[in-house]
This record gives sequence, C-alpha cells and structure tokens, in this order.
Amino acid sequence: MRFARVLFLSSRAAAFALSALLLVGFHAHAQTDPLPSWNDGPAKKAIVDFVQTTTTQGSPKFVPPTERVATFDEDGTMWVEHPMYTEIMFTLERVVELSRTHPELKDQPPYSAVIAGDREAMSKFTETDLLKLVAVTHAGVSTDEFAAAVKAWIAKAKHPRWKRPYTDLTYAPMQEVMRYLRDNGYKTYIVSGGTQPFMRVFTEAVYGITADQVIGTALATKFTPSGALMLEPKLLLNNNNGGKAEDIYLFIGHRPQAAFGNTPGDAEMLAYSQGGPGATLQMLVLHDDAEREFAYGPAQGLPDTKVGAFPQSLYDDAKKNGWTVISIKNDWKRVFSFDQ
Amino acid sequence: MRFARVLFLSSRAAAFALSALLLVGFHAHAQTDPLPSWNDGPAKKAIVDFVQTTTTQGSPKFVPPTERVATFDEDGTMWVEHPMYTEIMFTLERVVELSRTHPELKDQPPYSAVIAGDREAMSKFTETDLLKLVAVTHAGVSTDEFAAAVKAWIAKAKHPRWKRPYTDLTYAPMQEVMRYLRDNGYKTYIVSGGTQPFMRVFTEAVYGITADQVIGTALATKFTPSGALMLEPKLLLNNNNGGKAEDIYLFIGHRPQAAFGNTPGDAEMLAYSQGGPGATLQMLVLHDDAEREFAYGPAQGLPDTKVGAFPQSLYDDAKKNGWTVISIKNDWKRVFSFDQ
Repeated sequence: MRFARVLFLSSRAAAFALSALLLVGFHAHAQTDPLPSWNDGPAKKAIVDFVQTTTTQGSPKFVPPTERVATFDEDGTMWVEHPMYTEIMFTLERVVELSRTHPELKDQPPYSAVIAGDREAMSKFTETDLLKLVAVTHAGVSTDEFAAAVKAWIAKAKHPRWKRPYTDLTYAPMQEVMRYLRDNGYKTYIVSGGTQPFMRVFTEAVYGITADQVIGTALATKFTPSGALMLEPKLLLNNNNGGKAEDIYLFIGHRPQAAFGNTPGDAEMLAYSQGGPGATLQMLVLHDDAEREFAYGPAQGLPDTKVGAFPQSLYDDAKKNGWTVISIKNDWKRVFSFDQ
Repeated sequence: MRFARVLFLSSRAAAFALSALLLVGFHAHAQTDPLPSWNDGPAKKAIVDFVQTTTTQGSPKFVPPTERVATFDEDGTMWVEHPMYTEIMFTLERVVELSRTHPELKDQPPYSAVIAGDREAMSKFTETDLLKLVAVTHAGVSTDEFAAAVKAWIAKAKHPRWKRPYTDLTYAPMQEVMRYLRDNGYKTYIVSGGTQPFMRVFTEAVYGITADQVIGTALATKFTPSGALMLEPKLLLNNNNGGKAEDIYLFIGHRPQAAFGNTPGDAEMLAYSQGGPGATLQMLVLHDDAEREFAYGPAQGLPDTKVGAFPQSLYDDAKKNGWTVISIKNDWKRVFSFDQ
C-alpha cells in the first residue's frame, strides 16, 4: 500500500514534469518564429505556406529534398542597390585607379567620363558602356588577383547614406527567408546580374552561400600553363532576363521551386520557376519605404530612379501571375539587422 | 558477501560482454574497408592517405569541409569508353533516326557517312565533324524533350561486348572512391567532355551525383515565352583540356582538392587541382587489362586505339608531377560490380 502510494506520487510528479516539459516545448516552438523580422500578412503567409506544403511528407505538393532549390537575385532583393549598384561603385573607383597606370583611358569614352567625374555623361551610360567598364576593370588579371582587389575594396568601402560597409546593408527579412529555406532542405542560390567573381568574394560571409551556389554574369577565363586562370574581356554569360533562366539550367539542371527578385530582369527567372510541377513560390521586393530604405517604382506612383526600376507593368504581371509583391513598408518589421 | 560475489560475477560478465563488443567493433572496423575493390598498393594507399591527411582535425594539411571538392572525368575514368564513347553511340543512332524526318542529311557530310554506315569515313572524323553531329542531334529541341530522348535510349541500349546497359559498366573501384570521399565531406563532381544534358539524365542513379554537380560540354539554350528552354546549335562550353579548369572555376569557384582522369584532355584539370595549397591528389586510370576490360595506350607499349588514348608523354608527365597512375590490372580487385 505504501509502495502503491509512492508509485502514485511518482506518477503525479512525472505527470507534472511532463506537462512542464510540454509547456517549455510549446513556448520554445512559439518563440522560434523562423521569420521574426516579418509582419504578419500575405507575404509572410505565402512563404510559410510554401515551405510547409513542399516539405510535409504526404502533402500532395511534397518536393523531394534533392529537388529543393530557391534562387535569389542580389541587388535590391538581398541588399541595397541605391544610389548605385555596389559593383558599379567598385567598377567606377577601379577605372579611376587603373587610369593612373593606363593614362590612355582618360581620352576614351566611356572611361573618360568616369575619370573626369562627369555625372551627366555617366547618367546616360548604356548597357554597352557598362559592359566596357566591366571588361576593363574585371579582366586582364588572374582570378586570384581580381578576388584580392574586390576583397580589399569591400573591406573599406562604405555606403554614402549609412556610412557602413555595403555588406552590412543586407535585408534581415530576406536573410531569414534564406535560412528558413535551408533549414527545410532547400539549396539557396544567388542569381544576379552582378558578376560571379565579384560576388563570390563575400557571399559565404554575408549569406552563408558558398561559391558553387553563386550564379552571375561571367567573363570567359583562360587556363594558363602556370596553372592560373586569367579573366578575359569577353562576356561568357549575361545573367539578366532570359539569361537567368538559361544559367539556372546550366548550373542547377532544373527549375527552382522558389524565386525572388525585384526588377523586370528577374521576370524570366520567376516565370521559369513557376513553370514546374507542384507548389512553387515567386516573390518581388517593392521598395516603398523612403524612411527606412528607399522608395522607387515607377510602380504604384513611386519615383522612377532608373536603378532597380520596378515599372507598373511588372506589378501588373505579378498580380496576373500570382507572384507575391513584398512591400518593405508593410511587410518588414525591420529592414537591417542593425535596426531596432 | 553474497552481494559482493554477485557484483564480482557481474563485473566479469560485464568485462566479457565489453571485450566481445570490442572484438565485434574491431571486426566491424576491419570489415568496413572503404575501398574493398582495390588491391593493396600505391594507388589505394594514395587515396586513403589523402583522405586521412585532409580530414583529420589538427593535421597541417586539413581542408575545411566547405572547400572539399573532388572532380572526376567520366569516359574511361568512371565507366567504359570502348569501342566508342557512349554518347557518340547515342549520337550516331540519333543521326540515323533524324534522317527519317530530315532526308536532306543523307547528302551532307559528316551526317551522310553515319547514315550510310561508312566506317572508313567515320574513323576519320575530326573534332569539328563530331561537334556538327552533336549540334544536329542535341539542339532544336527543348531541354525536357532532349532529356526524354536520352532517357529512352539509355534504358534500352546495350554494350556490344557485355550485352548489358551502359550504366552497368561503371567501375566499382571508382564508385568506392566517390563514396569514400563523400563520406568524408567531399563534394564530388563529374567533369566530362560529354555533354551536360546527356549525362544529367543518369548521373544521380549511376553515381549518386545530382544535376548541379555535373559539369560538361554545353550548348547554349534560349528561354522561350512558353517557359521552355530550347537547346541551340551553338557551343557554349567546350569542357576539354583547359576548358575543364575554366569550367570548374565557373561552376565551383575554386580548385578541386582531388582530380581523376585518364587522357591528355584531363591534364589541365589535374594541374589546376595540384596548384592549390595543402594536400592534393591527382590520379589517372591506365587501361591495361584486356581480359577484364580493355588495354590501350600507347603508353607502356599498349595498343593505340585512338578512343581515350593514353600517350607515353602523359605517363611521363604523371611520373614527373607526382600524379598516381592506376593500373586496372594490378590495382583493381574487380572492375565491375557484377564481377565476382
């Protein structure tokens, strides 16, 4: 009888301990919102629904782990692109630097405008002009030498508005999406119009993305007998528009299940993602928060600042195709990790 | 006292159980040789030493997990390449098939020789001829349509000697090397002169290598408004010789720590691998076993069969550079998984 009573007490104690554990477990679960920088709303819900639908065994839209791929544009999707793409800042400063040893550049457009600091002429640069600038600043050196130049620049360069390294200006909510997807078996790729050798220098530190998952615009390289690879002034991959879909196929071999962008240059990537079977997710970041970041469109009457333009036609396409538009103003609780 | 005796007995029983476990453990360890299809010798030792040196914490040549990459040529390194590369077999049969709906091919070299079965003319095909054959058979269809054609062919095609599917003719010892490296944190890539869309159809089933880790010769693709990617008759990447090093950089972003090949077309990949810091491993498969597989050189006086040629100069380079030559005859206990 005493024995039974001890057992009874023990059972009660055990039951109490168990319920305490369950409570702890419940709180632990409630506390681990994977997207704490997001406000509740359609954008956050679309992400969570997508992950749950595609990773729950037995779900009709379950995606096997080997096929889980998500692709992210960089400029304007993962980090700030205003007042100018970070890589263009690097490129312009490197033109000026190169002109010290190559004075002939001072007389040749488009380099001459950069060296003279002619903002009027620079504002009219065409894509061909930009490709010329990229060729002269990104080629003629080995891949190791170029990486060293980027590493040195990115360590000291600061954004004119926040006076912080560019690598600090990555969006905390988007970093959470990347981690949430990876925690659920997704491989995450950067797929950017920026060049691959530039981005690869910092993507592992900034996004946790290793070099093999960085797809970008690429110059041809040439293997030399010394064992070094030389960067050549010859465009191999133009990773914009249709090029994004083509390069995703080249690097990954199949459609991504989820794709994130912010300009018409990302539309083909989103369409390619949506063309696959099962549940897919497409999202576009709309910069509508001048106070915490920048506001530009011209979608929804926002000012047209050219860099990273988001035209109304893209906004309309998103609605038509079921792509989710992320409003920075409404959907993000904070923009940067250094925000309160 | 009785209590103590029970304890004593228990201790003896426990000691016995423990030593039995240790013996089992010892045997289990002895039985889990990661390379059971290899004979003891310098080649097997080189592989085991490399893995231990680069993955033992505190080793001066330790390689961090994110940098562990090994690249493998396919034809003649991972599977049989005689009497003809598997993809060439596919290509020739597809030319004949296409000529039914494109009779004009019957009058145009090099297609005419294939359709007529003119072995004399075919034996003189240049690389340009082969690229023309690849262009007509691998382009003009969507990536999905091409994959379906390869899938159907590889399911029914049989090797003329073994009367087995080509996918059975993969080398068991090399499969073990791949698995051993993966078990130790290495990412394994196929890096082949064969085309990427052809290989990707079967690499996951045959090697456990997903599409994103298959680097090959690539035709350009074109994204279409329907969302399909069309294969174009335009060479984007020629993944041979220097192209192997260049494409490894494009896809992976850094040198592989280990590289495996069997022809001069792999030499640049091996040199690129060797140029990095820390311990590296380079190996070349020498086909010197006519009984169990094939024997061809002309290295070491073996017959020169053209396909997959291994010239004496490559053999000498290997010795000079410290690359390990794998002798199928001496180093492999068995060649195929269906061997005894």
